[in-house]
Amino acid sequence: MDVGVLVEQARAGRPRAVARLISLVEDAHPALREVMAALAPHAGHAHVLGITGSPGVGKSTTTNALVGALRKRGQRVGVLAVDPSSPFSGGALLGDRIRMSDHALDPGVYIRSMASRGHLGGVSWATPQALRVLDAAGCDVILVETVGVGQSEVEIAGLADTSIVLLAPGMGDGIQAAKAGILEIGDIFVVNKADRDGADATVRDLRHMISLGDRTEPGLWRPPVIKAVAPTGVGVDDVLEAIDRHLAWMEKTGTLHRRRVRRAADEIEAIAVASLRSRMGDLRAGHRLRDLAEALVAGEGDPYTAADGLVAALAEAHRDAADGNPAMRLNVP
Amino acid sequence: MDVGVLVEQARAGRPRAVARLISLVEDAHPALREVMAALAPHAGHAHVLGITGSPGVGKSTTTNALVGALRKRGQRVGVLAVDPSSPFSGGALLGDRIRMSDHALDPGVYIRSMASRGHLGGVSWATPQALRVLDAAGCDVILVETVGVGQSEVEIAGLADTSIVLLAPGMGDGIQAAKAGILEIGDIFVVNKADRDGADATVRDLRHMISLGDRTEPGLWRPPVIKAVAPTGVGVDDVLEAIDRHLAWMEKTGTLHRRRVRRAADEIEAIAVASLRSRMGDLRAGHRLRDLAEALVAGEGDPYTAADGLVAALAEAHRDAADGNPAMRLNVP
Repeated sequence: MDVGVLVEQARAGRPRAVARLISLVEDAHPALREVMAALAPHAGHAHVLGITGSPGVGKSTTTNALVGALRKRGQRVGVLAVDPSSPFSGGALLGDRIRMSDHALDPGVYIRSMASRGHLGGVSWATPQALRVLDAAGCDVILVETVGVGQSEVEIAGLADTSIVLLAPGMGDGIQAAKAGILEIGDIFVVNKADRDGADATVRDLRHMISLGDRTEPGLWRPPVIKAVAPTGVGVDDVLEAIDRHLAWMEKTGTLHRRRVRRAADEIEAIAVASLRSRMGDLRAGHRLRDLAEALVAGEGDPYTAADGLVAALAEAHRDAADGNPAMRLNVP
Repeated sequence: MDVGVLVEQARAGRPRAVARLISLVEDAHPALREVMAALAPHAGHAHVLGITGSPGVGKSTTTNALVGALRKRGQRVGVLAVDPSSPFSGGALLGDRIRMSDHALDPGVYIRSMASRGHLGGVSWATPQALRVLDAAGCDVILVETVGVGQSEVEIAGLADTSIVLLAPGMGDGIQAAKAGILEIGDIFVVNKADRDGADATVRDLRHMISLGDRTEPGLWRPPVIKAVAPTGVGVDDVLEAIDRHLAWMEKTGTLHRRRVRRAADEIEAIAVASLRSRMGDLRAGHRLRDLAEALVAGEGDPYTAADGLVAALAEAHRDAADGNPAMRLNVP
């Protein structure tokens, strides 16, 4: 595999090369270090939108409608469907692919499902890398769609420039939203299925809860609450307008750069943690951790002091590796 | 707070002291190092049973029935209900407490709900510590009940000596069980609500799937599949008999020790990871990580090399801390 050629082809917009690179990310391939180094200078252009919400609120139809609207403006669009809750699913959210089939043959749209496949912290390090691939491949906008299940919504929020939270009437009133922590993460709220009973009440509740937060201070972004009926296209232009407005606000206030730096820091940290865990696995194989565990089971010491010992062993191993061969690098994750 | 007094009271079986110590675990209290060191020599006596299954299979009623049967034998019982899927719930599974109320006033039973409260890897390090508290407090058997949601079932399996997987007719046929990975983790399968249609088919499917695995080799444990109707007590004695048989098998084959050593290793590793993450947080505050992230956002380098830099900084910090003050220890998590 010639990484340079693959990266060049992806940058030229060849779908196969893009798909291949994202597969390398999914597989945690050793060539990723080289791939990411080659892509990094060409990334940073795409506006990354996170789309989250409980199952059944209409994430896929909304994504589909947004993709259509963005394509009409001539923008290149990437769609990344992430399923952090499904370690066993192994790659495909078939339903999404089918529902997204409006755009399946459009060469200006990349659609990709990604499962974390049980990698520890897989979403944290793999998603930013897949975003980097799509970004460097020339996407103007990337939609990251995730099944919202508790913590993962919050996790995904950190991956996007702009987080769009979808609700449906009766499913997500203000208090439930507050409980779930989504009031804090949403930059734009969309009450989908707004032709159903209770939509106005849900909008009112949300606006009220948002007004109670500290986001109403001058200069801060006040998240709009937009009614939509995704399959008919109602509200889609309003959502698009809010997306543009949010991007402009982030650029003006420096928020965009700050969020991207935080995202990069999270990615680096996730890789470092994965690397350290993999080294711990080596230590386990090398009896050090097992000895510590045997002592603990025998009633000697405490797990904290044992953890100190493990960290010390890691530090030693790192120093030895660095001393012996300065070119030696972690092959992670 | 006098840790010595608290530990003595807990060992004497005082419920308040036990509750207080588990609260310290939930709060990730700095005194935990001392607490765990004081408890460790007195732990290792309890047989830890994991009870898992999808919502609605009857985990709480089964736990309730098992507690009743164990109490009749005069054993002291601890119940730990863990909810790893609920970072926002903050401590109590009220439903469980209510359904467990048969035993709420029995001084030979400790019942405790625990939420991971969004701590990273909270279940991995907090659950073994709570188990150590209950173990040192004299429990003969501890039941760890968890809401099964994908990966967490597997995670919990590693925490128990004996894993009991609950299914209900029509909810968990063999193929679904295989998909969910639970065939590998169950030591005992219970088809609950066995008075419903389809129970025999579910039992047959499960037995068939188990027979296809490699667990039928001589000397290996072949997981029994037991029919039960927990509210009426049907099958409870069979489950108890299987639990005893599994314990005897584990003792004879050395499996019990091996599982406990693995559990201790997981606990130590989880604490080490939490500690390293907390150090990373310090580095972030100290600009090192932010500088690496700024460079990545600027298109320089790659996240892997940045992660190397972060790990190197951690190793340095650890060496400096160890050199400057050998008594300095991590205060984690």
